[in-house]
Amino acid sequence: MQDFVFHNSTKLIFGKDKEQLVGQESVSYSKKLLLHYGGGSIKNSGLYDKVVSSLREQNIEIFELGGVKPNPRVSLVREGVAICKENDIDFILAVGGGSVIDSAKAIAAGAHYDGDVWDFFEGKSTIEACLPIGVVLTIPAAGSESSSGTVITNEDGWYKRSTGHITMRPQFAILNPELTYTLPSYQTACGITDMMAHILERYFTNEKNVEVTDRLCEATLKTIINNAHIVIEEPTNYAARAEIMWSGTIAHNDSLGVGRIGDWASHDIEHELSGIYDIAHGAGLAIIFPAWMKYVYKHDINRFVQFANRVWDIEIDLNNLEKTALAGIKKTEQFFSSIGMPITLKEVNIDSDHFEEMAKKGTENRPLGNFVKLNEEDVLNIYHLAK
Amino acid sequence: MQDFVFHNSTKLIFGKDKEQLVGQESVSYSKKLLLHYGGGSIKNSGLYDKVVSSLREQNIEIFELGGVKPNPRVSLVREGVAICKENDIDFILAVGGGSVIDSAKAIAAGAHYDGDVWDFFEGKSTIEACLPIGVVLTIPAAGSESSSGTVITNEDGWYKRSTGHITMRPQFAILNPELTYTLPSYQTACGITDMMAHILERYFTNEKNVEVTDRLCEATLKTIINNAHIVIEEPTNYAARAEIMWSGTIAHNDSLGVGRIGDWASHDIEHELSGIYDIAHGAGLAIIFPAWMKYVYKHDINRFVQFANRVWDIEIDLNNLEKTALAGIKKTEQFFSSIGMPITLKEVNIDSDHFEEMAKKGTENRPLGNFVKLNEEDVLNIYHLAK
Repeated sequence: MQDFVFHNSTKLIFGKDKEQLVGQESVSYSKKLLLHYGGGSIKNSGLYDKVVSSLREQNIEIFELGGVKPNPRVSLVREGVAICKENDIDFILAVGGGSVIDSAKAIAAGAHYDGDVWDFFEGKSTIEACLPIGVVLTIPAAGSESSSGTVITNEDGWYKRSTGHITMRPQFAILNPELTYTLPSYQTACGITDMMAHILERYFTNEKNVEVTDRLCEATLKTIINNAHIVIEEPTNYAARAEIMWSGTIAHNDSLGVGRIGDWASHDIEHELSGIYDIAHGAGLAIIFPAWMKYVYKHDINRFVQFANRVWDIEIDLNNLEKTALAGIKKTEQFFSSIGMPITLKEVNIDSDHFEEMAKKGTENRPLGNFVKLNEEDVLNIYHLAK
Repeated sequence: MQDFVFHNSTKLIFGKDKEQLVGQESVSYSKKLLLHYGGGSIKNSGLYDKVVSSLREQNIEIFELGGVKPNPRVSLVREGVAICKENDIDFILAVGGGSVIDSAKAIAAGAHYDGDVWDFFEGKSTIEACLPIGVVLTIPAAGSESSSGTVITNEDGWYKRSTGHITMRPQFAILNPELTYTLPSYQTACGITDMMAHILERYFTNEKNVEVTDRLCEATLKTIINNAHIVIEEPTNYAARAEIMWSGTIAHNDSLGVGRIGDWASHDIEHELSGIYDIAHGAGLAIIFPAWMKYVYKHDINRFVQFANRVWDIEIDLNNLEKTALAGIKKTEQFFSSIGMPITLKEVNIDSDHFEEMAKKGTENRPLGNFVKLNEEDVLNIYHLAK
């Protein structure tokens, strides 16, 4: 186990109707905020009205910025930064999923900085502090509600890049599983894939003696797997929605990753894909992760055997460990497919035209991954495996 | 799953030599502190010198109060409160195990209060705020390093009572598994029993649809069980000490208990025991918990079957679920015994003389437990089962 610091101070308020507390929670930070959200869904569902009314009850002055898209854009972030600076806004409330929260986090960093916010994503500058953020979560997926990172896309060149800082962690996040009842099954499945990928990125490590975090990862993966089909078949099943929602937070709140070095190559490889093609991040991960697994499993067959056995209940064939390892990868792929995710690039109409460009762009600063270090050629091979 | 708020902001600094950071971490809270500790062990091990030197490097003024005993006493807490008030001390550093931390927490509450600190433990007054606390942990057991509660014994009548408040959670805790190398095996085993009991108290719940927390509990229990014999046989095995130390924190940082109502009767029943007899809390739990299990398992046989199967790998006998449930209880008892814990009151020379008194005292304010509500007679029966 490696040395680590675990410090996650986000206050997580979980349960039915809890969005009604948003005004009360927000007012302890400011009487003026930027309300940040995506498209019309929160207006159609009535959530927008509930949030605004809770904020008004506390006499909070509301500035608004909607329009966050999946794979959130730096152009909108810059707009948000300008609004905060012009109006001396010192608190941001994100109502939505990971894209909205990530966009809010980038605004929170940019509002505290004299230069252009993209500097942070290019490593030209380092975040020193962010405005405080609150969250009402509507999509369990990214885990951004209690993570310290953000991923933003720059339309100028379609670069999708990440940055982070401890002060970027939301102060509070409200999680009401009922708010996810109206999520379409495809988006539900994308979220499930994303949270599983967050765990898998941590699970595949070269660190030895990480039993407790291994088992916590397996526990959370099994829960997600067991509840995935229920939420897709019965969208208003509170119990299953609650398991999925809380698992999504656990998957990315750092508790499963302490003391170990995660991989994250699949995320980086997928970011190139959804940076250019604008496909859903979860769908991209369902395609890339199994391909990555097939490409690297020989690096540590025993770890893949453990994964197959403990997560998928596949009996260990001691005479053929490789067979067991491959069966676990196959099960993962079949599972993604069973919840409606694509598992090949062909299914989302992506051909090999940009493979070389993506492999080059993704590795231009450093090799990807930690479990196995991948160079440009490796990444290219993985895209081909995912065809 | 019940609604819940999860908010644990303790900064956990884990790894080798990390006690060297104590000055740096403390100075951001105050230039003056109360250094609180137990007997001579931290002086013999050299930890005391390291801590003092790290504090002096930051020019922190140190007031000292040693002498905390297992089952920490309110008389020493009162002394600590007086020192803090007389010297305007606004930060407490606890160096030790759960008893030292609990004592520090009670001082932190008392220093902020005009009345007598015991009021909080009798429910005569409610904590509104505590002085901030830092921790250097030497015994993985109580989980007090990131919990919001404290247990103190009043020598006047030998009442052992608990209280808590969110501001009682330590600001930071330094966890270096090397500091546990010198723990005698009996104390190591007491700690292991205590952390397992913290998980079991949460595990045995009437709440349905708590899959993720069930599995996280099981994951942590399995890890503790797998590493227990290693740390007892090889006290300087860093990897195993690290698994145990981190599991002890997880067991009581609330992450395993969210969305469910725990039981806690065994803790209360044990508190009466160690309140009167001054036996180690962990040893008392090793005696009481299996007795409690035998007394209540019929209330929800399936939950005990799940425990037997998932934690102890006992095959489920579908024709005789009760047999499977009882096998799990037997395994728990055998495990405690195998790490050197007593599993009967006889082994610690406690006879039935005070059974009635303890059962009466423990239930005088309310029935104990939540999984099954226990009245005076039930508690008496459990003491008899534990003979």
